[in-house]
Formats: sequence, structure tokens, C-alpha cells
Amino acid sequence: MEGAVGQGGVAIDAADMAKYLGDWSGDHHGGALAVLKPASVAEVQAVVRLCAALGLGIIPQGGNTGLVAGAIDIEARGSVVVNLERLNALRLVDADNFVLQADAGCVLQTIKDASEAHDCLFPLALGAQGSCQIGGNAASNAGGINVLRYGMARDLILGLEVVLPDGELWSGFSGLRKDNRGYDLKQLFIGSEGTLGIITGVELKLFPKPVRVETAYLGLASFEAAITLFRQARRASADLMSAFEIIGSECIELARLIDADIASPVEAPVHVLIELSASAAVDLRALLVDFLAGAMGSGLVTEALLAESGAQAKSFWAIREGLVEGQAKRGYHVRTDLAVRISDVPTLIDQARRFVTLDHPGWLPQAYGHAGDGNIHFNVLPPADLAESEARATGADITAELYRIAGALGGSISAEHGIGRTRTRAFWAGLAPTHRRLVTALKDALDPQGLMNPGCLLPLTETSS
Amino acid sequence: MEGAVGQGGVAIDAADMAKYLGDWSGDHHGGALAVLKPASVAEVQAVVRLCAALGLGIIPQGGNTGLVAGAIDIEARGSVVVNLERLNALRLVDADNFVLQADAGCVLQTIKDASEAHDCLFPLALGAQGSCQIGGNAASNAGGINVLRYGMARDLILGLEVVLPDGELWSGFSGLRKDNRGYDLKQLFIGSEGTLGIITGVELKLFPKPVRVETAYLGLASFEAAITLFRQARRASADLMSAFEIIGSECIELARLIDADIASPVEAPVHVLIELSASAAVDLRALLVDFLAGAMGSGLVTEALLAESGAQAKSFWAIREGLVEGQAKRGYHVRTDLAVRISDVPTLIDQARRFVTLDHPGWLPQAYGHAGDGNIHFNVLPPADLAESEARATGADITAELYRIAGALGGSISAEHGIGRTRTRAFWAGLAPTHRRLVTALKDALDPQGLMNPGCLLPLTETSS
Repeated sequence: MEGAVGQGGVAIDAADMAKYLGDWSGDHHGGALAVLKPASVAEVQAVVRLCAALGLGIIPQGGNTGLVAGAIDIEARGSVVVNLERLNALRLVDADNFVLQADAGCVLQTIKDASEAHDCLFPLALGAQGSCQIGGNAASNAGGINVLRYGMARDLILGLEVVLPDGELWSGFSGLRKDNRGYDLKQLFIGSEGTLGIITGVELKLFPKPVRVETAYLGLASFEAAITLFRQARRASADLMSAFEIIGSECIELARLIDADIASPVEAPVHVLIELSASAAVDLRALLVDFLAGAMGSGLVTEALLAESGAQAKSFWAIREGLVEGQAKRGYHVRTDLAVRISDVPTLIDQARRFVTLDHPGWLPQAYGHAGDGNIHFNVLPPADLAESEARATGADITAELYRIAGALGGSISAEHGIGRTRTRAFWAGLAPTHRRLVTALKDALDPQGLMNPGCLLPLTETSS
Repeated sequence: MEGAVGQGGVAIDAADMAKYLGDWSGDHHGGALAVLKPASVAEVQAVVRLCAALGLGIIPQGGNTGLVAGAIDIEARGSVVVNLERLNALRLVDADNFVLQADAGCVLQTIKDASEAHDCLFPLALGAQGSCQIGGNAASNAGGINVLRYGMARDLILGLEVVLPDGELWSGFSGLRKDNRGYDLKQLFIGSEGTLGIITGVELKLFPKPVRVETAYLGLASFEAAITLFRQARRASADLMSAFEIIGSECIELARLIDADIASPVEAPVHVLIELSASAAVDLRALLVDFLAGAMGSGLVTEALLAESGAQAKSFWAIREGLVEGQAKRGYHVRTDLAVRISDVPTLIDQARRFVTLDHPGWLPQAYGHAGDGNIHFNVLPPADLAESEARATGADITAELYRIAGALGGSISAEHGIGRTRTRAFWAGLAPTHRRLVTALKDALDPQGLMNPGCLLPLTETSS
């Protein structure tokens, strides 16, 4: 196999391979026949052709930060991992046309930095942006904190370049903002989680870099109040609101696991982190001050802190980021990524909390998320003294019930992380037969041998492999 | 066939059928075995099942305003037209969640009005909005004047409901803003121009209705200056610019054909119509005044009129809308829908004008379009005394050369209208073999009998029918 990827592109030693077979959460470990690291598009094609000839499964891998085992063969069925980290050139930054082109293996932070150096913004913003790769972001249709204003990865992609399951290269870069020539093929690959091909390059939309950013940390009495506030804020700010995060006060303890100095800026049961951004010509501060004065006057908001500096804004965000890291520090826990209609967010949290409290006393529910998108990460920490194996067994039951609660509200079990391998069964069970048939037809049309990322997104029995 | 669509749902009389077999432009006429007008989703399913059993081609039809014969069988191969005009209920307006659901046959203007009645905006804005149907907008991925800020129809669609070529119903409504469960099937049908199924319902994103709108009509020395101005305006206004249209001064005469009282507000060779919109909390007027003062100070803009009232803003837009209608009044003419990189807009217009002037003296080039998207309608009017048959023959040559010029710049022959039947040959000829293979694989996977909209988007020889 070294022939296909050159020197330094193959890791087959168990120690060398280990870092590619587990993820950041520590929850998932997999096996692989080999880990290949092609350094060019031609090498990706060669690897795919070789695997196709040998009938080997191919697992495309980016930064391995998706948390759903999308790039980890947890069943260890003898596939080949194709990691894109060496294919990491920034190909073009065209600030005049607000376009950036990059290899799939480029780290998201690198792309954000390069955009900023050209006075532009690439708005995808994730906790993992320092290690996730843009190809993985595209393949998993990543979300994050700025979806509210700028959309998911899907909405930020102008073009893709993809190595198909037979090794042919499909190149869909154009630099055009508008192009309505037939089927929009890139849409197939965005969110397909490596099951239809390997993304080797992306063409992205850039935006003018906002010059003014205003951030506030608010205390409210309830999630109901938070959703009412969101609606009012959306109308008051037109399209200038770039984030609206909710945090149940119970999550603050988790952030303190990361930094003991973190103190909650408010005492209320529900916290809201709101961010507006705009060009220099808009007086955002006045807009936010007026809006919050009204919201406090009506009693909707009980406490409000407006960041007086970039450092203070950063300290607000440190709470939001810290609670995620703090959870990870606690080891195994139930992690969800639910979406419901925005107006159903309070009901979802209420029902989920009630279930955990009644049926699993001792387990700690944590509710936070991107409320403006109806996306709630309702996570549950096991009692500290519970053995991990027991926690995992009970955790699976809790997860199933949380999925049921979201489903009964017409919600989704995957708002932004995708299906991967951890959610395949629940995903497939929830699909109407017609939907299943379409998914299978697409998979069979593009990957008739069933070699691309076997076991991810589609159950193994549904593919031809 | 009446059994499938009930009384009043079949038109087979030549006179009854005529209005469904020609389009607004008068350029295209087709034939059909029958025109069916189902009034429910179940009736659409029954019609499709019947046609599938009989092996008849099915042509889904909305308002017939797409201008590329996407819903007119110009080769009259004996297909059945399925017009959706009777399937026209507004199903839901949920302003709390900024979601609207409607039958495919709903007229766009009806949807815009219903949104406004709930203090919301549905931003798709087209000249044909009084007669086009939302199902057709989805199927053709319609564009229009607000794409710059809000995106194409694709970007405004949350969910679709589609009758598949075998008559099965796929229902993809969820009301969710974020849902990352596997392949995003709706993306397949958006822009597929009826070749993969019949869209029967749409779920749309609504936006807060902008309270402030500011419009200015500007004069500039060149298209080059207009593109520089666009870049500056985009940065100055953050995301508040909702339209940036360019009009070559030669187009004004056309608007006068519709309303002789129309006078050009400026004398410059290139006109720009710019619109900003926002919530009440943003002082848009000051923003625009400041920006234009700077642009005039630097000499980029030579004349500027800021609308002092809604009526004056409307009079500016009447020029933009009038020139399109005026062209139609002139009868047959070369009509294009080109897209290039934004920075290539001046080159495209320059090369196209030069070609027409040198090779076809007497023909009148008209350049206007959505410059902020790089989308130029470069149209050419035949000499008034030229016989139509001769004009059409020469027009075909002119079109081919304009496509060549756009192609040489890496551009698109269809920025927003789609492929239909008029552009199929040019579209297909311009595709890389890998791209063709993917398009054909999708068509075969979803419509193995090749009955959906035969001859549209894919050449007839490429489908199984």
C-alpha cells in the first residue's frame, strides 16, 4: 500500500495507528487494517482504486472530532482508514469574490485565520475548530454556534471536489455565487459522512468580517422566557444576531472543573449568551442596550451583563466552552444532540428532566444548546460512584428514552453531529419505508460495491457489501 | 383519466389546453396528450401511478414562468402535463417558529402576502411572483433580486413533500431549523426541474419583516466601478444589503415601452439600484447616506438619488421591472442568464458587447442583472425590420457565442433559470464525463423508467425511456 501514498503515508504499527482509532471523547475505539495518509488528490485516487480492487472498506477520516464514530470502525471489520491530514494546503483566498478554496485536510482554525488575514469571516465556529478538518466539516454538515445567522456547513459551501468510490475525481469548483445547472451534486456529498466518496477539496463562501461585536450574558427565570426572548431578539436585531445560546445553571459546575475561577455572572436558573455582530456603520451597542432595557422592563430578563471589553466577552464564552470540556473530564456520560421546533424547546427540556429525575435518581441532567436553532444538547452525567460498565448500560436506556421524547415532539436525534455509527440503529428505525428506500437507492447508485465507510449512516445489512 | 383527478381536473380540448402549452414569453409552444389538474396529493399520486402503468411521460407544471421550456414539451412527444394550480392551499403559517407550509400550487405572491400578514418576510422575489407557483420555484431553484442576502429558493426551503415516479409519497416536513439525519433528500429535488418527482408541498423559512428599507438609484461611469462599489457596499453594510442590481443605460428605452413617462433618474452609462433593509433599531438611512457620500467623494459614484418615500423607491424599481417587460414587448430576442465570478462581470459584458457590435451590427445588446451574485442577463434585440425566422436563426448563433464567452471565463449558462429544454444541449455538452455519469446515475436511481419530464435537463438519449 505504500506505493499508493508514498513514504510516511502509511501507519500500520499498532502504536502509530492508535491515535487514528480513537476519538477526543475517549468513548469510541475501532480497528483498521491500515491507516493511510495520502498527501495529494492523486494519492487519494490511487488508494481508493487499490481498495476497490481488493474489495476493502474505506473509512475517510478528518480530525475525528464528530463524537458519533463516523470515522472509527468500532466493529473493526478490517477496513482501511484514509486520513486526510497531509492533504492540507490552502489553495486560494479571493477576498474580492469572497471565496476560499482549501484541501479537505485543512484545519478549520487555519481557514478562519486565513480569512481574517484578508479581512473576511468564515463563520463556521465549533469547539473543535483547532483540530477538526474542513473536509470532515463538509462531510458531516457541521453546525456550531453561528448557524443562527450563517447556516450549517452546507450553507457555507460553494463547491466540492470528491474522489468517487471507483477512484474517479469529480470536481465541482466554480467560484460562482449562483449556478443553477441541473442537479446540485455537491449537496449529495455534504452530510453524507464519507459514505458516497472522499471529499478532497472545498470551496467556501466568505463574509465581510464584522467590525463590531456585542455580547451579553443574561439571567432568566425559565426556558420558556428564553424562547420568548429569542423571538423578540430576532425581530429587534433583524439579521444581526450571530449567537443565542442557552445554558441551564446546573451546567456551571462543569465549567468549574476546567477553571475553578469561573464564576457564574448571574444567579438565575436559565442563562442566555447572546451575540450581535455587524459592520462599523451600525450602532450595535445602542441596539442591544435598548433591547435589553425593554426585556428587563417587562420582567423577561432578570439579570443582564453587557460585555465591556473583548476580554469580558471571552470570559462569558469560556463558561459555554468550559462546560463542554468539563463534561468530557467527567468521563462517560449520555450525550445528545436533539432538535425540536424552537417553541418546543422548553417542553423538551422539561420532559427530559422529569424523566431523568424520576426514573434515574442520582444521574445529573445538563441542558444547554443553540436555542435559536431549536438544538439542545441534553446530556446526563452518571452518579460519580457508578462503575463505567453499569453507567454505559443505563446510559443506553436513558439515551433511548431521550430519543423517544424528542421523537414524540416531532424532533430529530441529530441536529448537527450526524449519524455516524453510534446513531445508525436509532436513525434507521425512525425512517419511513419510502425514505429508507431513497437513501438505499442513492447509496447503491453511487457506491454499488458498498465500500465507502461501511457501517456509518446506513446499517451494514442495507448496503451491498 | 378523469377518474384520477375528478371532475374539472382534465383539459383535453385543444382550446382548453392551449394556456398550459405555451409560456409567458410566447417563445415556446408544446404538445401534450392531456393536461391534468389534480386537486389533492392523493390525486397526484393516482395520476402518476396511472401514467407509470401506461408508460406515459409526465410533465410537472407550475406557473410556466421559467422561460426555459422546463414544463413545455416542445417536441410534443405525447406526454401528460400535470399542472398543480388546483393544489393551492396554504397549510400553515407559524410565525413563532418562522415556518410556513404550503401546497406546491400556491402562487408565490400569496405566500409573500400571508407571511407579511404575520409580520414576517418570505424573501423570494421574482418578476413573475404574481403567477409563478412555489412548487415550480422549488423545482427550478429560483433566484431573483434578493438572493444576495437571503439565497436562492434552495436556501429558503426547510422541507419538501414529493410524489415519486412510482406514485409513492415522500414526506420531508419537520418544522426543524436544524436536522442532520443522513442524506438531505430534499436537496435532490430542489433544482431537479421535475425530472425526479412531483413536488406537492413545501416548507419554507420565514424571516422577520424588515421595518426599514432604504433604496438608492446611482449613476456610475463603468461596470468596473459598479463592481468596486458592490464590494465596498457589502463591507459597509455587513449583511443588510438586500439588492444590488446593475442596469446598462441602453436598457432604459425598453422600460419606456411599458410606461412612456419613465425617465432615467441619472445620465450615467451604468446605473445601480441598491437596497438595504433592517429592523427598526438600525439607522439605515444614516448608513446609506454616509456610504454614498464616501463613494461620491472618491468619484466612484457620479450621481445618486436616495428614495425619499416608498413611492419613489417604487419608481426606481419600475425601471428595473419595466425593462424586462419591455423586452418581451419587442418579441423574439436573445435572452441569457449568465453567471461569472463577481470580479469578471465587467469583462463578460465588455466581451459580449464587443462581439455583438462587431459581428452583428444592428442587433442591440442589453446588459443588466444581479451584479452582487455575478448574474448578468445579457440580452440582444434583433433589428426591428428583421423577419422573425431569420432573427431566430441568427439568435441561436449569438446565444452560442455568448455561452462560449461565459464558459471561457469559467462561468455558467444558467445562473438562476435552470436548464429546461432550451439549454439541455449546451448544458450537456459542457459537462465533464464524470459529472454526466453522476447525473445519469441519479436519474436512473430515482426514475428508472425515465418518465419524469422527459427531455428536460437530461437529453432524451441519456435516460432509459
